[in-house]
Amino acid sequence: MDFNDDTAPRARRQRVQSAETGMAVLKGLARLGGRASLTSLAAHVGESPAKVHRYLASLVEEGLVAQDAGSQAYYLGAEAIQIGLAAMRQADPIRAAEPALVRLRESLEVTCFLAVMGNKGPTIVRMEEPGLPVTVNVRAGSVLSMLWSASGRAFLGFLDESRVRAFAEEDLAAAPPEQRAQLDAADPIGQLRREVQAAGCATVRDTYLRGISAVAAPLYDHAGRVCAVLTALGATGGFDPAADGVIATAVRNEARAASEQLGQTRA
Amino acid sequence: MDFNDDTAPRARRQRVQSAETGMAVLKGLARLGGRASLTSLAAHVGESPAKVHRYLASLVEEGLVAQDAGSQAYYLGAEAIQIGLAAMRQADPIRAAEPALVRLRESLEVTCFLAVMGNKGPTIVRMEEPGLPVTVNVRAGSVLSMLWSASGRAFLGFLDESRVRAFAEEDLAAAPPEQRAQLDAADPIGQLRREVQAAGCATVRDTYLRGISAVAAPLYDHAGRVCAVLTALGATGGFDPAADGVIATAVRNEARAASEQLGQTRA
Repeated sequence: MDFNDDTAPRARRQRVQSAETGMAVLKGLARLGGRASLTSLAAHVGESPAKVHRYLASLVEEGLVAQDAGSQAYYLGAEAIQIGLAAMRQADPIRAAEPALVRLRESLEVTCFLAVMGNKGPTIVRMEEPGLPVTVNVRAGSVLSMLWSASGRAFLGFLDESRVRAFAEEDLAAAPPEQRAQLDAADPIGQLRREVQAAGCATVRDTYLRGISAVAAPLYDHAGRVCAVLTALGATGGFDPAADGVIATAVRNEARAASEQLGQTRA
Repeated sequence: MDFNDDTAPRARRQRVQSAETGMAVLKGLARLGGRASLTSLAAHVGESPAKVHRYLASLVEEGLVAQDAGSQAYYLGAEAIQIGLAAMRQADPIRAAEPALVRLRESLEVTCFLAVMGNKGPTIVRMEEPGLPVTVNVRAGSVLSMLWSASGRAFLGFLDESRVRAFAEEDLAAAPPEQRAQLDAADPIGQLRREVQAAGCATVRDTYLRGISAVAAPLYDHAGRVCAVLTALGATGGFDPAADGVIATAVRNEARAASEQLGQTRA
């Protein structure tokens, strides 16, 4: 390159900008459903058709975009699928939820954790505790009750899998009569699921850990499957487990933000 | 911009090149599993770490890539998932198979078509005929037999769905004894499926249309599901339906190429 010292920084900036414009064209095509005419794509990204056409030529060259011979429309190509598949394969609920755990701990001073469905039941994989934590005997690696913990109930309400129902049936069969009496007599598990679904989160008060209340909301992956549950807990009395309370609202919002990081399309 | 006339064409070429380099970095990250260190990504794309770092900054800016705070590794971000999902949603087996149909017609001078699983059974959606076509009474819109057509057998062999088996059972129950006798007595449908799977394609000779032989192979989508079947047919005698013959090999290769367009990962 023969730019002089004066123009080199601008050229470098321009090169990065060009890459960004190329990505904006790619994202614009995705936003328009993966298929668009040059005119509508140019209007969407706010650039001239001539300029967008040059970027599309690059995207076609790299296999990310193809052009329909008949309609002349541009559409996302096979390389775009491969990039998406790689992104989905390495999308990690723990990484996606980490900032949420930190924010919940700092803003609400609550103990919070992320649980996934392990082979023994809902299992804590990441936990954050405030400076003055409540004393709970759960930590990363702990397997929680499907039926009596907030985390388990969130899986039960939002993850329609036979193993989830089987764990809940086991918990129900093993429960003493006074604990069973907390649930609906006719359809204990079905009614619980409907309540969780209606609230958009699961809440418990002293049902699993004595003196502890908790609120849990699901994380969804790109396929709309529940891949993890985000839970906040605290000492009953100093912790509001109401489904419309400050904590439940924050947990639901953080779970939704993490789901977006995992590729869930906003409804 | 204040480039003079002499440098403008180069600047324009460079801008497109920069977009292409950005896409190459994005594709490289996908090839490396969606997650890589700067060093390994730079080695993979064959550029200096300093240069790749600038492009990654652009990709991070556009949300296609994110950086792990702990390991400093780069990984494909939420926008990459969205682009992939849009690409998958609009991936179209008919469009992907069109060039294959034309090539089969021109190179082998055979009638060929693409069929999808419709609600009544395997249904032709696109057909190509050579200059001197064989006379067949099927066309776009025709529903084919699940059990007796090559297309149906390809779905039967490679698409494990209850409705596919149900259509085959219906065809078997409705068949006259001499036609049933062509299949295995103990396990007619199971044995047929195993044969098709072993051959990688389905072949028939006079079983569905009198005097017509055919060869059919499946198209897979990004999720590894059979989304369509590619079939070539001709007059028995002038058409080699052998699973290791020229036509079957061409049909399998074209079906594989179309599957790659639909995002199937090469095994």
